[in-house]
Order: sequence, then structure tokens, then C-alpha cells
Amino acid sequence: MQFASDNSSGAHPAVIDAIVRANEGFTPSYGADPAMDRVRERIRDVFEAPDAAVYLVATGTAANAVSLSAVCSPWSAVYCHRHSHIMEDECGAPEFYTGGAKLVPIYGEAAKMDPACLSETLRAAVHVGVHNVQRGAVSITNVTEMGAVYGADEVAGLCAIAREWNLPCHMDGARLANALAATDSSPAEMTWKAGIDVLSLGGTKNGLIGAEAVVIFDPGKSWEFELRRKRGGHLLSKHRYLSAQMLAYLEDGLWLRLARTANAAGARLARGIAAIEGASLVGPADANMVFAVLPRSAHRRALDAGAVYYPWPGAWREDGPDDQPLCARMVCSWCTSDAEVDRLLDAFGN
Amino acid sequence: MQFASDNSSGAHPAVIDAIVRANEGFTPSYGADPAMDRVRERIRDVFEAPDAAVYLVATGTAANAVSLSAVCSPWSAVYCHRHSHIMEDECGAPEFYTGGAKLVPIYGEAAKMDPACLSETLRAAVHVGVHNVQRGAVSITNVTEMGAVYGADEVAGLCAIAREWNLPCHMDGARLANALAATDSSPAEMTWKAGIDVLSLGGTKNGLIGAEAVVIFDPGKSWEFELRRKRGGHLLSKHRYLSAQMLAYLEDGLWLRLARTANAAGARLARGIAAIEGASLVGPADANMVFAVLPRSAHRRALDAGAVYYPWPGAWREDGPDDQPLCARMVCSWCTSDAEVDRLLDAFGN
Amino acid sequence: MQFASDNSSGAHPAVIDAIVRANEGFTPSYGADPAMDRVRERIRDVFEAPDAAVYLVATGTAANAVSLSAVCSPWSAVYCHRHSHIMEDECGAPEFYTGGAKLVPIYGEAAKMDPACLSETLRAAVHVGVHNVQRGAVSITNVTEMGAVYGADEVAGLCAIAREWNLPCHMDGARLANALAATDSSPAEMTWKAGIDVLSLGGTKNGLIGAEAVVIFDPGKSWEFELRRKRGGHLLSKHRYLSAQMLAYLEDGLWLRLARTANAAGARLARGIAAIEGASLVGPADANMVFAVLPRSAHRRALDAGAVYYPWPGAWREDGPDDQPLCARMVCSWCTSDAEVDRLLDAFGN
Amino acid sequence: MQFASDNSSGAHPAVIDAIVRANEGFTPSYGADPAMDRVRERIRDVFEAPDAAVYLVATGTAANAVSLSAVCSPWSAVYCHRHSHIMEDECGAPEFYTGGAKLVPIYGEAAKMDPACLSETLRAAVHVGVHNVQRGAVSITNVTEMGAVYGADEVAGLCAIAREWNLPCHMDGARLANALAATDSSPAEMTWKAGIDVLSLGGTKNGLIGAEAVVIFDPGKSWEFELRRKRGGHLLSKHRYLSAQMLAYLEDGLWLRLARTANAAGARLARGIAAIEGASLVGPADANMVFAVLPRSAHRRALDAGAVYYPWPGAWREDGPDDQPLCARMVCSWCTSDAEVDRLLDAFGN
Repeated sequence: MQFASDNSSGAHPAVIDAIVRANEGFTPSYGADPAMDRVRERIRDVFEAPDAAVYLVATGTAANAVSLSAVCSPWSAVYCHRHSHIMEDECGAPEFYTGGAKLVPIYGEAAKMDPACLSETLRAAVHVGVHNVQRGAVSITNVTEMGAVYGADEVAGLCAIAREWNLPCHMDGARLANALAATDSSPAEMTWKAGIDVLSLGGTKNGLIGAEAVVIFDPGKSWEFELRRKRGGHLLSKHRYLSAQMLAYLEDGLWLRLARTANAAGARLARGIAAIEGASLVGPADANMVFAVLPRSAHRRALDAGAVYYPWPGAWREDGPDDQPLCARMVCSWCTSDAEVDRLLDAFGN
Repeated sequence: MQFASDNSSGAHPAVIDAIVRANEGFTPSYGADPAMDRVRERIRDVFEAPDAAVYLVATGTAANAVSLSAVCSPWSAVYCHRHSHIMEDECGAPEFYTGGAKLVPIYGEAAKMDPACLSETLRAAVHVGVHNVQRGAVSITNVTEMGAVYGADEVAGLCAIAREWNLPCHMDGARLANALAATDSSPAEMTWKAGIDVLSLGGTKNGLIGAEAVVIFDPGKSWEFELRRKRGGHLLSKHRYLSAQMLAYLEDGLWLRLARTANAAGARLARGIAAIEGASLVGPADANMVFAVLPRSAHRRALDAGAVYYPWPGAWREDGPDDQPLCARMVCSWCTSDAEVDRLLDAFGN
Repeated sequence: MQFASDNSSGAHPAVIDAIVRANEGFTPSYGADPAMDRVRERIRDVFEAPDAAVYLVATGTAANAVSLSAVCSPWSAVYCHRHSHIMEDECGAPEFYTGGAKLVPIYGEAAKMDPACLSETLRAAVHVGVHNVQRGAVSITNVTEMGAVYGADEVAGLCAIAREWNLPCHMDGARLANALAATDSSPAEMTWKAGIDVLSLGGTKNGLIGAEAVVIFDPGKSWEFELRRKRGGHLLSKHRYLSAQMLAYLEDGLWLRLARTANAAGARLARGIAAIEGASLVGPADANMVFAVLPRSAHRRALDAGAVYYPWPGAWREDGPDDQPLCARMVCSWCTSDAEVDRLLDAFGN
Repeated sequence: MQFASDNSSGAHPAVIDAIVRANEGFTPSYGADPAMDRVRERIRDVFEAPDAAVYLVATGTAANAVSLSAVCSPWSAVYCHRHSHIMEDECGAPEFYTGGAKLVPIYGEAAKMDPACLSETLRAAVHVGVHNVQRGAVSITNVTEMGAVYGADEVAGLCAIAREWNLPCHMDGARLANALAATDSSPAEMTWKAGIDVLSLGGTKNGLIGAEAVVIFDPGKSWEFELRRKRGGHLLSKHRYLSAQMLAYLEDGLWLRLARTANAAGARLARGIAAIEGASLVGPADANMVFAVLPRSAHRRALDAGAVYYPWPGAWREDGPDDQPLCARMVCSWCTSDAEVDRLLDAFGN
């Protein structure tokens, strides 16, 4: 009963197979492998973006931070949700890569930026010459850190606000596949057609061993991105193994199938919890992450039965009364089975 | 009728005299001038801190940013008020000097940090290993950007909260003289006795041409500070002119006398505005800054009469109805006379 | 006939097998995988360093730059060979991670630092207070970028010079296995017993798909390293696949066996070239890299026959006379066969 | 007998007078003072550059580092002399401000870059995609740190080499007035007409208390410069006192008159030393700095007689034989009299 994180799951067998197959002979290193040409083509096809620049890195933090540094300045303000990954979970990587940009918190339910809050924050940004940081970029996380999914129209709405100030828009798509699966929007509709300029396209959480793409829809920034990636130590020498993963991921829509499985498990889990007496969902559970409040006794039963997941926020604390409500995050993965979900629900509901 | 900023005033004649007198012969450069030895002694005396390290720089932003960089790490969170100078008015200098630390906004009235908000923010700082930035430092501005003054006990209260997490405390004392004049606390009581580890001691706004001291009460960080100052380009070669200013400033309590004059003008202005029909003070006006809402007609009369000050926040906008309330900031200086204050009040009240 | 780089070779089958086997079930992420505990133990055993802190990253540039940033300050001078990887091939990653340290070139044959040059450079480092960067660290690359190997005594000699100035010593051991294989020194003798404080232990060039260890012999810097790794985006979420590679690498001395194979191929190639009329070795070819001058006609025959390798430095230029001598770098890999070497020699010698 | 540095001299009386006169009433702060408009006009006139952007800062290190950061990238190589001020005397300020650019040493006599060395270094800069830092800028110091002066034609020659690689050219003109006085070139000929894009125009060493101008001949970078200056803490609030200094400096050619005085003293000193038995000049002594080897006995007599100057490089060491030759740097100032020079010569020659 593993619901701690989609990062604790393994890789899909097709991905492992691709790595095994890639292990043939000699190949040019540092991204010059022929497989990377195919990755580029494939991503351009999938995103209907024939001019996009495409790069691979091994971590989502690298994808986000290097991307942001390529579209911002050190004196930029980056507007993102108060509970976004770049704000809370990257130990200041965006600040490091940008040379000290300021992440400005935007508020809203379920870690979705409230358009009115974004709009007002941008408008109210005191802007008196050189004294304050300058409006720099907007970063949108889809799926959000709280399990909500922006529709393509919502993304477009936020991008339109950014565009009023000529700001580039970044999407942290560590779970973009899950967002697409949840909305049936096309990759293009969810990204550049909505106004996204640069995308961190996740793979690791959804069945890869460690590969993320950066898709720069306006390729004018691509050379700078390449230098920043190298300088950050994120240009892998035996790059073919990143390419192989990403090719397998996109082959025949594997990425979306895996995301649908995870989302379905998430939905099943959410429905089940909603039906438990004394339990309630926190946030919308639009994709593969479920946040819910349950009595301490229910958590205790689940943990005793071997379930693995984390309270949210923070850590399990010392004992308390059985009926004390505690919030937890449960994440379903590309390989979470219905049976696994049902076992957890049984443990909760016992 | 100059109320735009204490930065738009000139220097006190005694300061100019000191510069003239300092212009004799040759002197070792880069801070090795004998006058700096006297500055050091004087500040140690005034602050009852015989071991303090003392440095001079030409700007308050340098004093703040270099100080913070010496007590923080690049992965630090610096807790400061949402409307502090380091947060809003230094174009990201603290982020630049620290190598990308994150300034975390604390809320509270009149730009004073609410202790409960600080305490809760520190407690709630999700702290799960390396994923988030680490609690780094607390920075307290006294006088605040909204004209409020912390009492020494209030400073001590905030420092005590910081101490629970072993965090160093910085004070942005760009207007410390005004805070001391407003409270009759001693320099020591307001700073290291309350728990402040490093102080930016302002002079420029209070009668100097451009000199600020940094006082490091725990001198273990002093060599790092010196390197960071040099590397930031803030070690002045003809340092004697900084020393001369600071000596004149501290001579016979000039700094406190000037601050008392400015505060008295601020109080007079605040009392006068409070008595104007349709006007109201915003915030406490504890020192030399007055924030007040007046009808547009009152502002128009004042501006037409030659008054200089700024709306807050933002800039004067196009015309509106006469009775529209607009907030403005009016700052009194060490050289603001009662007559000047009364002229402004007359213009408002006409 | 692949002699372009050890980075263009694939991974050893045992490494691929280990990755396949690691792909079982769920595992704690971000370095908390049980396999990492075994990596730590294994490396501590291999290096006879029971207290060493051990970390894994995916690239050698990350290993070097994050390591250096943990032992240096932004105002440090890092002494390294003029032709070291950190100086020439990392696009400024050390400067980026350290926050602007200065890499000071040391000279010497075959990219080995001449002890006299290091000693004199350190002694002559003008050191007049804050005006210059401060002596910070010494970084030694073994195998060097020009194919030479330092003996453990030579490393100890350089470290002793560093120690005179209390400087920490870093070793870029991207090809440490090859250096060990070439010298029959133990890992401990070549590193901490010689005075090395922090080691980048390469794996990628020697049969892994992408994994490097950082070994910090003085673990006082380990928490800072962890934060810097995370902040650099180099903490892999599905870390188990790094652990699996490193375990396989160290299992039964695989790493040294692979290095011996590569070195033997290098020696065979060097001997063969030395015997070719008109050809001559450049540098010692102590390990798996051979630098040699051959007439353009010999290069042309080899390239026509399908050989892949690069001129050094620079790129193949337009045609010239047949007898024009051109220097090239040829790198043997863990999977370079004698037959492959002989084919290249045949092509040269034809 | 003060020959330690032009930084240890005071300010010219006209400069002090200007500061006294500037101390009238209220003035807009942060560079919006009307006097700054006149500075801008004056510098544009003097440099025949009607579109140049002009800024003031308080230190030469700030002028250099902020300038370089505005024309370079973090991944840039900056080519400068091995013994330039930015390389050796700013504690890494250029690396700090640029975000980690690499300063590449160019060699040549008397701290003048040898054009062949610059040309060859640029040509040989291995440039294989993203692996190395990218050619970024050339920085020329005039007067050099060893007292030599580049003619305008020599500057043009170096800039022409830079231009072959499309590199911007920076001039560290901390002593530009002395260089102009030595060559009778016009300010325009020595700078933009020769190919300089951005100039640090020194004033502090030549009679000011602390003011340097940055002149950006291509104003496209000016907004970035302004943000970087603010962010570096180098935008002075009471900016009028910088403006006043610079206006006085340029009034009626005061800056060139002062430089001529210093240069004449330098020439007198150089001639005198050359005539001393057992003494010899080191380098050309083109301007106000004289480097010379004298026997220890001569130094001892001078020091005993009260002369102040420094050995070069390094510091005075313990005693040695009377006839031991020691090199020293002696700097003449805008206020060094012939009598003072003669006293020093007398002491040497006794």
C-alpha cells in the first residue's frame, strides 16, 4: 500500500526495455545522440510545435530552475502559487539559477493561482524605477501541488494576465500527463496555445527512471538554455539513456495511458474516502493526488496495515485522541492497482 | 515644503565642516585611516559593545545586503516584514548578496512584524530535510517603513522568537536614531541587549551626505564581512570622508538631536493633520514619517502651494473628485522647521 | 573503431542488470533508498574511511562543482591545472556553484600540476588583506585531461603544499579507477591518505549509464553539500537507479577490472603508435587516453576506415599536405578490444 | 613624502567647495538631482558622445564590476591583463557581479596586453559548443597597473581584435585622465572612437573624495546597468554630492590639469631615479606611477626620512644586505609638488 509519492514507484517495463536496447555500441555523447533527434521530432509532433527547442535533464528541479533562469533576470519577480514546488520544495533552486530572482506568492484554493490575486498582485507591484524587483515571469504548476488540475482555459486565463505585462509564462508540468489525462485537452492546447512559453515536461513521476524534458516554444532562448544547462551540470554525457526513456514514454501514448491509470486510482481512492464516515476530502483530487482528513484512528489502522503515505503538511506527530482529524496526502502512481486502493480504503474504514 | 523623503534633505553643517577638515594631507586608504579607529571606539562606546566590529559603507542597501549575506547562507529564509525596505526597495540586493536567499514575508500593522505571525511562520516552515530553504535569519526594521517604532521590548520579543530557532537577528536601522529618540531606549537596549546580532546604523537620512555603519556585535563574522564588502565594491578608497561624517554624527549626540528634531516635526504634522476635517492618520506616526489620508482637494491645494511629497503607495494619478480620499507619505527631516510644517498644514486645511 | 571518448561507450551489462533488478516495487525516494545505505558502506570499505560522507549525482560536472562549492567561498581562489576539466570543460560550473570563485591556472606537463609552480603560485599570491581573492582550495585531476596519472606520492606532494596554506584538496576522479589501475595504489592511498578532503569518484566514463559519487572524507561539510546538491537540482528523486549502478560498479572490483581493460587498450594503442614511422606520442599515455601526432595522411586513412576520434585541441580542419603532423586524442573504453585497437593501428600504418 | 597611492591624497579644494555649495536645500534623490543632468551633458560633450548613458558610483570597483556585468553573461570569458585591477585587486567583484564569469589572463609588458597574446588567446579559446565558457568581453586598463599608458592607436588595435569576435570592450579608466594627459589624445579618441563600448571613468584617485562615472556609449544596456547598480547597493540616495564632485572635476578641464600635475611629478621622479647610481626604472613610467629597483640602503634612507610608499609586489621584509635590489611602486598625486619629489630623490641618493 504505497501512496507516499509517485517518485517512490519504479519505471514502466517499456522504459527499462528501452534503456536495455539503448545499451548498444558507441553513440555521440552530450546530447548529440541520434535518439535525441527522434525525441525532438516526437515532442514537436506531440505538441504541434515544429519550431520548439527540446532538451532533456534528469530532474524536475533542474527543468524548472534552468528554464526560469533562461526567461528571467536576476532582478525579476516570478509569480507563482504560495504552495508551488518552485516556492517550497526546491531549496531555492530557482533563486540559485536565476542569480537571485524573487518568487512572489500568489494565493488560491488547492494550490491554483487565483486569477484575481495574480492580476491584483501584478497591478499592485510597486514599480517605481529601479527600487524594486521587476515583473519577470509567471509560473503555473499543472497538476498543482494540492492535486488540482487547471483546465486549458484556466491556463489561458492566467497567461492572458501575464501577457498584459509582457511576461513570459512557464509551466511546471512535472505531472502534465496527469493534467492532460484529466482534461482531455491536447498538449498544445494546454501549453503554447494557452500562452505557455516554456514547459517543464515531467516523466520521472510517471514511469521513467529519471528524465524530464524542457520544451521552449520560443526557440530564441535555446542557446542560453543550453549554456545554463551545461553550467548547472545538467548536460548528461551518456545522454542516450535520457533519450531512450523519453522516446519510450511518448511511444504510442504510453505517457497518457500511465497517467490515466494513476488518475483513475486517484479518483477511486477519493470516492472511497468521501464515503468513509468522519473522513473528508481536502481539495478537488482532480488527478492522482488525494488530500483528505481522516480521524487519527483511521490513519493508525492504515499505517498498522502497512500503508505508506505522509501527513500534510509536516510529519506524523505523537499520539493524540482517536477522533482527532489529521490531513494526509496520498499519491497514486502509474502502477497503483485498484486492489491496492481498495486495501487502503478497507484499512481506513475498518 | 519638502516632505518627499529624508533623503532629499542635505547634510548638517557640522558634517560638511568635518569633511572640509578631513581634507588635509595624506591618509592611509581603504579603511586604515586613523579616524576610523575613532569611529570604532565611539560606536563601541555608544553601544556599550567593546568587542563589536564596525564598518562603514556609503549606502543603506549595501549595509543591509552585505550584513545579511554575512549571517545567512544562499539557502536561507530571511524573515522580514512584507513591507520592509529589504523586501520592497532594494531591487533584490539581499538576494544578490546572499547568493539567492529567500525573503519570507511576515505581516503586521504599520510594517511592524506581528510576533504571532513570525512565530507561526517559523513554526510552520515545512522543514523536511533538504527540500526547502532553511530558516536563516530575522530582519527587523526600526523605524519601520510605515513610520512605526518598535520599543526595545518589542525588538527583544521578536529576537526571542528567532532565538528559539537559533536564528541571527539583523536590524535595519536606517532610521535607528529616530527610533531611539522616540523611545528613549539606549542604543544597547534597542540592539544587542534585545538580541540583535548585526545592525545597519543609518546616517544618510539623518544629516550625512552618505555614510552608514554596520555594527557586528558578534565579531566572528567580521572577516567575512570585510571580504564581502570589498567584493561588493563597497570599500571606499578615500575612506576618511566616511569616517569624518560618522564622527561628526556621533559627536555630542548630534545624531539623536537631529532625530528628535525630525520626530518633533513629524509629531506636529501628525497632530495637525488629525485635526483637519476629512483627514485621518494611517498608522502611528511614531517618528518622522506621517502617513495620512486626505481628500484630493487638500492634496491639490498643498501641491499647488509647492509642497513635495508622494502618494502611498504608487504615484499621483489623473484627476478625480475633490472628496476622493488619497493616502500620502510625508517625511520630516532633521532640518524641517515648525514653520514648514505649519505651511503644509495651512495648505491642506485651507 | 570508436576512440572519441569513454563517454560514447555504453554501460557494462552488469550495470544494466542492476538497473533492471532495481526496478522492483516501491522505494523511498531522494536518496533514502536502502541501496544507498549499501553504497555508503561499500565506499567507506573500499576507501577505508568509516566516517566518510557519500553522495551520488548523475554527472561529473555536478560532482566537481558542488564539491568545490562546499569547501570554498565565493572569494576563493581554486588552484588547478590550466587544462583541467573544471577549468576548460564545464562552462564555468565551478564559478557558478561557488558564487564566483576564481580558478587560478597552474602549469605542468601533460596536465599534471608542477609542484614548483603550485608552490610558487601559492606563495606569490599577493595577499594584502581584502583586495585579492583568498587562497581557497587545490583541485587535482587524476587521470589528467592529457592522459597522465599522478602517483599517490605525487598527489601527497601537492596536498602537502596545499596544507602549508591550510587549503582543502579536491580530487576530480572522473577516471580515478584508471588511475588506480595504472598505479596499483589503494583507493585510500590515492585519496585521503595522500591528503584529499573531497573526491569526485567517476563512474559514467567507466561503464555506468550516469552516476558519480562524491566522497567527503571530513564529514563536517556534508549537510552543506546536501543542501547545495538539492539546490543545484542534483538530488535525483528515483535515486535507487543511481545506487544500483554504483553498487554494481564496486561489486567484486568491477570498476577496477573495467579500468584495467581500458588502460591495457590504451597501452597497446600507444605502443603501436610509437612504432609507426612519422608518428609520436604526446604525453605519457599512462592510462586509457592516448595523445599522438601523426601525419595527416595517417589520420585520413583512419577516418576513411571508419575510425572516430578528435584532433586535439580543436576540430578537423580543411585539407593540408599529407605529411602535415596533426595531434589527436584517442580514448579507449572499458569495452575497447585489442582487435579494435589493432584495426586502428593498421589503418594508421597502412 | 607621500607616494603610497593616489588614493591616500585628499580632494582638490574646488571639489570640496562644490560639495559645500551642493549642500543647499532639498533635492530629488537617487540620481534625479538636476546636477546629474548637467553631469550627463558635460560628459557627453567632453566625450563627443551625445547618446551616451552616464552614471555615477562611489568606487572604481563598482564602476568596473557593474559595467562588466552589464555587457557580459555569467558564462563569459573576460580577457584582461594578468595584472589588471579587475584580476588582482577587487576580491572577485567582477565574478560576483557577473554571476561567475571567468577572467582570462592576457600577458604583456608593464601590464599592457600584448596584442598578439590577446589575439592568440581568443583564437585558441577552445570553442566546442557548450563545454567551455564563451568569449565575452575584453577589458583594457589605461593607465595600466604598472604605470604604462596605451596610446589611442594601441587601444584601437586591441578593440579591433575584440571586434573580430564581436566582443564588447570595457575600459577601466580609473586613471584615464592621466592617460589622456600623457598622450594628448581626446577623450573620444581614447575611448569610443577606438572601439570602447563602456568606460569606467575615474575621479577618486585624481582629486575627488569618491566618485566615478560609467559611460555607456551604446545606451542599449543602460536600463540593465541601472538595475544592477541599484541591486549592488551603488545607487546613492543623496546623489547630489556625487554629481557635484563630477561637475567640479570636469569644470574648465580641472581633471586634465590635475592629471598633468601628477604625471609631471611622475616624470620628474622617474628622471631622478634613473640618474641614481644603482637604481633603475621598471617599466615605462608613462604617467604618475613609477616602478623602480633601488638598493635596500636607498629605501632605508627614504623610509627613515619619512617617505611612504610600498615595495612591489608584496610588503617590506626583514633586513637584508645594503646592496640588495628591491622594487617599489611610487605614485604621484594631483597634489605632489616638485619639492616633495626632490626630497624623495635626495633621500634615495644620499
